[in-house]
Amino acid sequence: MKLFVSTLMTLVFTFGFAQENKDKDNLMPLPSSIEYHKGYFVVDKNFSVRIEGYKSNRLFKYADKVLRRISNESGIFVDQKILTTSSNPQTSSVVIDVERGGKFDVEEDESYELLISKEGIIIKSVTDLGAMHGLETVYQLLEVNNGKYVFPLVSIKDSPRFVWRGLMIDVARHFIPVDDIKRNLELMSSVKMNVFHWHLSDDQGFRVQIDSHPELYKKGSDGNYYTKTQIKDIVAYASDLGIRVIPEIDVPGHATAILTAMPQLASKDTTYTLERNAGIFSPVLDPTNPETYKVLGDVIGEMSELFPDKYFHIGGDENEGKNWESNPDIVAFMKKNDLKHPHDLQAYFNSKLYKILASNGKEIMGWEEIQNEAIPKGALIQSWRGVNEGEEVGASLSKAVKNGYNAILSNGFYIDLMLPASSYYSTEFVPNTIELSKEEEARILGGEATMWSELITPLTLDSRIWPRTAAIAEKYWSPKSKTKDVDNMYSRLDLVSKKLERIGSQHIKNKDVIIRNISNYNQPEVVKVLVDVCEPMKVYSRNPNGTMYNTFSPYTKFADACIVDAIGAREFGNLVNDFIKDDSSENRLKLVEVFRLWKTNHSNFLEVVATSPMLEEVALKSKYLNELGVLGLKSLELNNISPLELKSALKNIDEISADEGGRTELAITNSMKLFLKSLDHK
Amino acid sequence: MKLFVSTLMTLVFTFGFAQENKDKDNLMPLPSSIEYHKGYFVVDKNFSVRIEGYKSNRLFKYADKVLRRISNESGIFVDQKILTTSSNPQTSSVVIDVERGGKFDVEEDESYELLISKEGIIIKSVTDLGAMHGLETVYQLLEVNNGKYVFPLVSIKDSPRFVWRGLMIDVARHFIPVDDIKRNLELMSSVKMNVFHWHLSDDQGFRVQIDSHPELYKKGSDGNYYTKTQIKDIVAYASDLGIRVIPEIDVPGHATAILTAMPQLASKDTTYTLERNAGIFSPVLDPTNPETYKVLGDVIGEMSELFPDKYFHIGGDENEGKNWESNPDIVAFMKKNDLKHPHDLQAYFNSKLYKILASNGKEIMGWEEIQNEAIPKGALIQSWRGVNEGEEVGASLSKAVKNGYNAILSNGFYIDLMLPASSYYSTEFVPNTIELSKEEEARILGGEATMWSELITPLTLDSRIWPRTAAIAEKYWSPKSKTKDVDNMYSRLDLVSKKLERIGSQHIKNKDVIIRNISNYNQPEVVKVLVDVCEPMKVYSRNPNGTMYNTFSPYTKFADACIVDAIGAREFGNLVNDFIKDDSSENRLKLVEVFRLWKTNHSNFLEVVATSPMLEEVALKSKYLNELGVLGLKSLELNNISPLELKSALKNIDEISADEGGRTELAITNSMKLFLKSLDHK
Repeated sequence: MKLFVSTLMTLVFTFGFAQENKDKDNLMPLPSSIEYHKGYFVVDKNFSVRIEGYKSNRLFKYADKVLRRISNESGIFVDQKILTTSSNPQTSSVVIDVERGGKFDVEEDESYELLISKEGIIIKSVTDLGAMHGLETVYQLLEVNNGKYVFPLVSIKDSPRFVWRGLMIDVARHFIPVDDIKRNLELMSSVKMNVFHWHLSDDQGFRVQIDSHPELYKKGSDGNYYTKTQIKDIVAYASDLGIRVIPEIDVPGHATAILTAMPQLASKDTTYTLERNAGIFSPVLDPTNPETYKVLGDVIGEMSELFPDKYFHIGGDENEGKNWESNPDIVAFMKKNDLKHPHDLQAYFNSKLYKILASNGKEIMGWEEIQNEAIPKGALIQSWRGVNEGEEVGASLSKAVKNGYNAILSNGFYIDLMLPASSYYSTEFVPNTIELSKEEEARILGGEATMWSELITPLTLDSRIWPRTAAIAEKYWSPKSKTKDVDNMYSRLDLVSKKLERIGSQHIKNKDVIIRNISNYNQPEVVKVLVDVCEPMKVYSRNPNGTMYNTFSPYTKFADACIVDAIGAREFGNLVNDFIKDDSSENRLKLVEVFRLWKTNHSNFLEVVATSPMLEEVALKSKYLNELGVLGLKSLELNNISPLELKSALKNIDEISADEGGRTELAITNSMKLFLKSLDHK
Repeated sequence: MKLFVSTLMTLVFTFGFAQENKDKDNLMPLPSSIEYHKGYFVVDKNFSVRIEGYKSNRLFKYADKVLRRISNESGIFVDQKILTTSSNPQTSSVVIDVERGGKFDVEEDESYELLISKEGIIIKSVTDLGAMHGLETVYQLLEVNNGKYVFPLVSIKDSPRFVWRGLMIDVARHFIPVDDIKRNLELMSSVKMNVFHWHLSDDQGFRVQIDSHPELYKKGSDGNYYTKTQIKDIVAYASDLGIRVIPEIDVPGHATAILTAMPQLASKDTTYTLERNAGIFSPVLDPTNPETYKVLGDVIGEMSELFPDKYFHIGGDENEGKNWESNPDIVAFMKKNDLKHPHDLQAYFNSKLYKILASNGKEIMGWEEIQNEAIPKGALIQSWRGVNEGEEVGASLSKAVKNGYNAILSNGFYIDLMLPASSYYSTEFVPNTIELSKEEEARILGGEATMWSELITPLTLDSRIWPRTAAIAEKYWSPKSKTKDVDNMYSRLDLVSKKLERIGSQHIKNKDVIIRNISNYNQPEVVKVLVDVCEPMKVYSRNPNGTMYNTFSPYTKFADACIVDAIGAREFGNLVNDFIKDDSSENRLKLVEVFRLWKTNHSNFLEVVATSPMLEEVALKSKYLNELGVLGLKSLELNNISPLELKSALKNIDEISADEGGRTELAITNSMKLFLKSLDHK
């Protein structure tokens, strides 16, 4: 059989079948190469899977899961029960041919070839990791044609652009329970992401059971931490999904939780309590205190047994060293050791930490501030600083690889900034202004989206990560040449958003829950009209000074129902674009319908507010929407906007844009301006 | 302060405030006594909680949780951070006064008194269990009045009718993961239920880690079992919610999973594999084999360390003894020991089990078949047999208490039968035809709703339990006299359904997910029209012979989106009732609107079917709905139904009722008949 598979694949990829164009890809991330052929493979109750060659337990589980997903999506009662080595039918719809098990290594082969013919589906890969990616591609290809559930006939050759395709989740600012982590691992693997970076400690919490110093999690977590059993469970779960797990203990800054538990390690003698606000705080470990290294050695030692990955992330970001400079003993230590600047002291600290990690068999990973001559080239640098931090656009990553480090990019992938998918999708790893040698470019291992959790809870976690992160995943996986077309990306993002919900994502359903809650179960569809054109305020402006919200604030409000790339706003933007290209009566009518909805929604909205005072904060926003609806109707139906009115309307829209009610913004104002300006030329 | 609280409570309950009637209670279960007073206590950011008297850790957690819920529901940024002994403000909105910690005992005091005045809220109770019930009552009372979040002023005295208010969840037929169990414990406690009966083994699975015989869970669970750590975690979690946990290992029948792992314990020498279908099967343990008791002793020994409750449930149901009678050795054993009937052999088996339990400090609990002279009166009997099993209505429970046992009732509370809430609500513990002495009546400890899981998965679990089980919880908690009014129950059930969603239930949101999935994200609102008037087939008729569906079938289909007490069907029923009482033009118009929707929905439904073949199975049902709409419109708008047409229409409706498309029934046919028949008299 193996020989047969190989021969068939060779034939197909050499000579090809009759090719056919497809209007629209379903896939995200797009594969390196794909050819569509005429016809379909039809799913029926005999649909089954067989694994050839190397048998890995995780691949059986994965294949079984995809089999179940296909049954669940089609409603077909597939005969094949649970998939095990002993249960594989000899005649199978899907044959998976694997050479060996994959390792979590930056050199690993994750490629696969996929052939779907009318006779069946063949996935061929070097490692089981590649086969798992192939299975996800198969699942994404499932579609309906002519009353049947089918797979289009394709030949795919695929391998990732980058080996490091990560998502960081901060579980310190708000704790994220085990199942929410697991669900997101599952969603990550569905878009071929393979690194989970677990930000386990920060000023607001220390989230790991440490037996040698139990006060760390007992005093540092409000009772919300992961037991060792839970961590092992998550690491094993991730491994079964082809995802490596990188733990982060952020030191020497971002250490308030550690110091709340162990104030004796502090650089300043004061009382420490868990931080409840957001921001950059001064509590910092004392790098001149030997106990600091003793404790970190114990912590890293215990954690090294939980986390098999070779990398261990030690944070290292945003330490301003204030409490060092104000401590005479530390200042004296710096003088004695010829450390001129807090940066030098941090380098000293990192070099000590590096040795602790090395003695536990770990390589060091850290935010870009850890770069220093004391840190050897085996370190992995996470680039995060950008224009706001005084770095030239895109320069920070290039600096790291020019310094000789392997590096990954997070600047440009901060999903907590609440920017649209298009923004992350257009992030370039190396700007045009910078030239890298081939060796330097090879040191760019990939990227990580970062989900900082100041303003999220398990209720909103998924809607803050998905579907946007699928577009980022494509950025990490697909060839650069295939990640340029934003409109095409959005059309596929809409499809992948549905697939994500089918396999468990809560990004749609929890949004609806919040809408029902905030409307007090009175006409939620009216509230939805406003939610769908509003977005949470961006780039940390929702939470001024990091103090308007704290850990225990309600994250169950209007802003929490709103998502980035607001659906109604995107639809309106498309209608305006169509209208500008062609002011046909059809395009006019579509806009008129939207404007009517905006206009009439407000009186109902006020009814809802009367039963749900929680919504008072956005009553003005609803009124603005009403005004824009009236304005739109006046423009299109009555066709009698004077130049003076137009000018005043545009000014009015600027005021509307500035409204911060409910800590959200009306996301239709730019499109509305384009619409109004276009009237001049009509 | 304690004295002040006591004095105030005495004054209020003695003299009372000015009383005011309230149109509608929010509460479920209803308290023993409640008086409303004029006015409200208003929630603002100073809202806070203090605990007086006995300090129990679980009460702090519970109070903190309710504080967070109030903040989340109102959107008010409550100043008080996490609630601990050290963080209690001296001036508090809520003062909780508790004498001592509660125990899980059938004699325990769970009563509380609740006083809400304009100055604040006082909860007074003997045990922390009582205070926790009081906190749930407070949360249910939260409402909106005149633009504010308020609590109505009330004096409540409350205590449960029954001490045993349980929910059984079967995790054998389909495995239910830890978080789904925890969420349902939380929901149970919100309606004052206090017993979680965990059905851990059956023909389809053995779900407990047992270290002395690891093959039990390794071969008996498809990898889906609870580790000891997870079990301890769940038991502790339940205890913090005031819920006791009763484990069940179902023996000697329902034992296919055990025998798959350990065929040497079987009464018949054959090959055993995990059962994938539903029903009553013949595999049964060999009660003549000493190893059977050795293994059960080990299992019970290990489990007794995980489950602190004094009761241990050994199943004992539905063993027909076929494999005993066909085994000559067993027949010989029976003869030798003068055991005439398989029942006698099972009694022998139970008496051995009883001793194992006793040696582990456990009392025996079992399904009613375990009653026998060998079983002492300390046993707790679970009555489940009813008319279908040849028992007189309501007789089985009474028999058990007449036999001298404590007993609980499950017959009449089988929620997997998919009957309406009204059916369970009208279940009587003792039928009028039976007389019990006071002592006998006192032996009725309460009841348990049973959630057998042949046709449920985590996706549908909540919608199969909630909100119906809240009505059952009221049956167990509230005075008998207060559980008679079905309409009133339904109006409060609608409220409690929303509260359940607010605190995490997935019964609404997962239904929407399934609707989106089965519509393939094309016009889900059209599919919802049909879902909302259909119910899953009842009383096990959805799964004929237990073989149409198996463990791995897709439970993601039309029937899985449908719920009992279908919303649209209930609304239509109410409109028909209104119309029959008064055929005003207003009432006519409301019906006309519904009929129009039914009529017009079908063409859109066919559009959806074209993109989602999974829905073909209910296309005819949509057509029937369309026909009923046309018929309704003809009756009301055209007013020209002839007696002959009416007769034919009624016959047609009988056919429609019999349609089993999608394994569902159109739940509007009875109301439609009432409507048509009423036309005769108009």
